[in-house]
Amino acid sequence: METVKEEITITAQITRFVREDILNLVPYMPSNEPCKIKLDANESPYDVPLEIKERIWKRLMDEHFNYYYDPTCDEVRENLSKYTGAKFDQIFVGSGGDEVIYDIIMAFAGPGRDVIIPFPTFSSYEIFSTIAGSNVIKVPLLKKQEKGKCFWDIPIDDIKKHFTKDKPQLMFLCHPNNPTGDYFDDDKLEDLIRDFNGIVAIDEAYFEFGGKTFADSISKYPNIIVIRTFSKIFSLAGLRVGYAIGHEDAIAQLFKVKMPYNVSLFSQIAAVEMLRQTDWLKKVQQEFIKERERLQNGLEKIDGVTVYPSSANFFLCELKKPRDMVYEELLKKGILTRRFGDDVLKDCLRFCIGTPEQNDLLLASLKEIMSSK
Amino acid sequence: METVKEEITITAQITRFVREDILNLVPYMPSNEPCKIKLDANESPYDVPLEIKERIWKRLMDEHFNYYYDPTCDEVRENLSKYTGAKFDQIFVGSGGDEVIYDIIMAFAGPGRDVIIPFPTFSSYEIFSTIAGSNVIKVPLLKKQEKGKCFWDIPIDDIKKHFTKDKPQLMFLCHPNNPTGDYFDDDKLEDLIRDFNGIVAIDEAYFEFGGKTFADSISKYPNIIVIRTFSKIFSLAGLRVGYAIGHEDAIAQLFKVKMPYNVSLFSQIAAVEMLRQTDWLKKVQQEFIKERERLQNGLEKIDGVTVYPSSANFFLCELKKPRDMVYEELLKKGILTRRFGDDVLKDCLRFCIGTPEQNDLLLASLKEIMSSK
Repeated sequence: METVKEEITITAQITRFVREDILNLVPYMPSNEPCKIKLDANESPYDVPLEIKERIWKRLMDEHFNYYYDPTCDEVRENLSKYTGAKFDQIFVGSGGDEVIYDIIMAFAGPGRDVIIPFPTFSSYEIFSTIAGSNVIKVPLLKKQEKGKCFWDIPIDDIKKHFTKDKPQLMFLCHPNNPTGDYFDDDKLEDLIRDFNGIVAIDEAYFEFGGKTFADSISKYPNIIVIRTFSKIFSLAGLRVGYAIGHEDAIAQLFKVKMPYNVSLFSQIAAVEMLRQTDWLKKVQQEFIKERERLQNGLEKIDGVTVYPSSANFFLCELKKPRDMVYEELLKKGILTRRFGDDVLKDCLRFCIGTPEQNDLLLASLKEIMSSK
Repeated sequence: METVKEEITITAQITRFVREDILNLVPYMPSNEPCKIKLDANESPYDVPLEIKERIWKRLMDEHFNYYYDPTCDEVRENLSKYTGAKFDQIFVGSGGDEVIYDIIMAFAGPGRDVIIPFPTFSSYEIFSTIAGSNVIKVPLLKKQEKGKCFWDIPIDDIKKHFTKDKPQLMFLCHPNNPTGDYFDDDKLEDLIRDFNGIVAIDEAYFEFGGKTFADSISKYPNIIVIRTFSKIFSLAGLRVGYAIGHEDAIAQLFKVKMPYNVSLFSQIAAVEMLRQTDWLKKVQQEFIKERERLQNGLEKIDGVTVYPSSANFFLCELKKPRDMVYEELLKKGILTRRFGDDVLKDCLRFCIGTPEQNDLLLASLKEIMSSK
C-alpha cells in the first residue's frame, strides 16, 4: 500500500513539472496493427531496388560512422538544386518533412503567434504548433458537390477573417491536401498568399504524384516556403529526409533553429543516390498514375463508396456503411487503412495506392464488404 | 539598381516575419577547416570496425527503406534496458543527444519558463532553450585552485538564488561537464537536485569515459532525467542516436513532444548492433583511459599549459600564450582543436583524445608552439 501511495505522489509531482499545454497533448501514434498490406501511411509500396541499396552501401563504406556528418547537408542541397531548379541557398534539408515543418514553426511562429491551419489536413502542423506554444487557428474546409462530383474547397473568406494586418503569422497549405487528396484552386491559393502578412508554408509532400508546384513562384511570392520529402515517391520513409525551398533570407532562418547534424550520414547519402535514379523514378511515377486512375474507376463502381478526386498517392473515401466496421473487416482481410478522429471525417477511410496486386485485393475486399448485408 | 532595391525590400519583409528572439540567434556552426587530425568535436577516433558495419548492413537488407520505421525505437530501448539496467518504460530514444535535450526543454520548460544553466557548458542547452522561448538563466562556474590543482567548481549558493518555490523550472547539469572536463562534487549535485522544484536534466554524454552516473538514482530522485548518446564511445556520431533515462511518467511526456520516426531505420539498427559489441567497447574504453592518463602527464610537462582534470574523452587547457595563435599554429600542423567565444574561456583550447599516434603529434606540436619565442 505504501508503495502505491508513493507512486501516485511521484506521478503528481512530475505532472506538476510538465507544461500545461503538453500535458493533454495526444502524441501522433501510428497504428501498429499487424497486416499483410499496409495502406495506412501513404508510403510507396516499392522498396529501393537492391542494386541502388548496394550503391548506397558502397558509398557509405568510404565514410566514417564515428565523425559528425555535414550539418548543412550540402551534397543533398547541390543535387536538389539540379532536381528542383532552385538555388543552393534557397534549399534547406531536415530530418524528414516533419523536422522542416517543426523548424518553420519555430522560426516564424513560436510562442504566442498565430498559426492558421485549414483542416482536415496533415496533423503535424497542429501538434508541432501546440508544442511551440503557438495559437492554432483551425478553419474548416468546405465539402462541396458540383455536377455530381464531390470535392473539398478552401474557404478563402473564412480564412481571411483571421488575417491580422499588424502581427506576422504563419499559415499552412497542404498542396495537394492530405487527407482529402486533391489540390485547391490555384487562384484561391494565390489570393491567400498575396493577402497574408506572414509566411505561407506550402506542403508539397505529394508533389511528384500531381506535378503542380509553388517552388517556381519563390521570386514572385518571397513569403512562401515549399516543403517536400523523400518519404513518398523516393521510397525513403524509413530514412528521414525532407527539404524546404524558399527565399534565401527565409531559408537562412531555418538553419538557425535546426538541430545540427540531425540528418544522418546514411540518410544524406541515400537521398543523393535516389536523386540520381531518374529512370527508376519516372517508371514508379507512371505506375502510380496508371494505378490511381484504375483504382478510382474501380472505387466509383462500388455502391455506397464516394471517392474524392486525388492528385496524390492516396484516396479518401466516404462510406455509406459504418466506417469502423469497414475498417475492421478490411483489417481481417489483412489490409490496414487509416481512419481519423475528426468529426467531418467520421464516415471516411483513407488508403494509399499499393502495387497492382494490392489494389486488386483492396477493390475486391471493399466491394465484398460494402455489398454484404 | 532596381533589382538591388527590390532585394532589400524582400529581405526587410522576411526579416519582419521572423521571431525576434530567433533573428539574432547565432546557430551552432562547427568548424569545417580542413585538417588531418580532427580533435575539435569530442568524437571517438575509432570508426566502427568493418565486420560490425557489415553485420549492420546485413540486418538492413531485411528491412524496407520505403516504410516508416518504429517511431518509439522499441528494439533499441529493449537493448538499452539490458545495458543500463533501467526499465523499458524508463527509456526514451531520440535523434542524437541533441533531440533528447530539445524534447526535455519542450516538455518541461517551453515558452516563458526558466531554464537554469551553469556555464561554461554544452552550448545546445542555451540555444534550444532560446528557440523554445524559455528564459535562460546562466550561472557562472567558479574557477578554483587547491593544493596546486586547478578545477571548476559548481556554485550551489549562486544557483539556489534562482530557485523559485512556486514555479516549476528546468535545470541542466553536464556530468562530467563539457568543455571543462570533470565531474562536480556529488554531494553538491545531490543538494541541488533535492532543493530544486523542477526537472534536472543530467547530461551524461561522456558517461563511459568516467563511469559515474545518476541513472541508478531515478527512484530516489524522480525529478532527474539522464541524457546519454551513441555519438561518443559507441562511434555513431554520424548516425544520430541519443537516449534519456528517467521516471516513466517523465519519459511519457517526452514521447508527446517527439517528432515521430525521427530516428532512422539505419540508426536504430546500428545502435542495437553496437550495444552487442561489449568486447570491442571494453577495449576502446581501456584505450581511452590509458591515453587520457598519458596525455595528461604529457600536457602537464609543457610550460605555459594548465590542464584541467578530465573524466571525459577531452581536455580543456589554459594557455600562457595567445590562444588564437596556438590554435592557428596547431591547425598549420593539421590539428583541429576547439576554441570558445565565452570570455572565461578566452585563453583556453579544448581537444579530444585521439589515437596514440594523434596524441603524440598533439603533444609534440603543442610543446614546440609553447616553447617557441
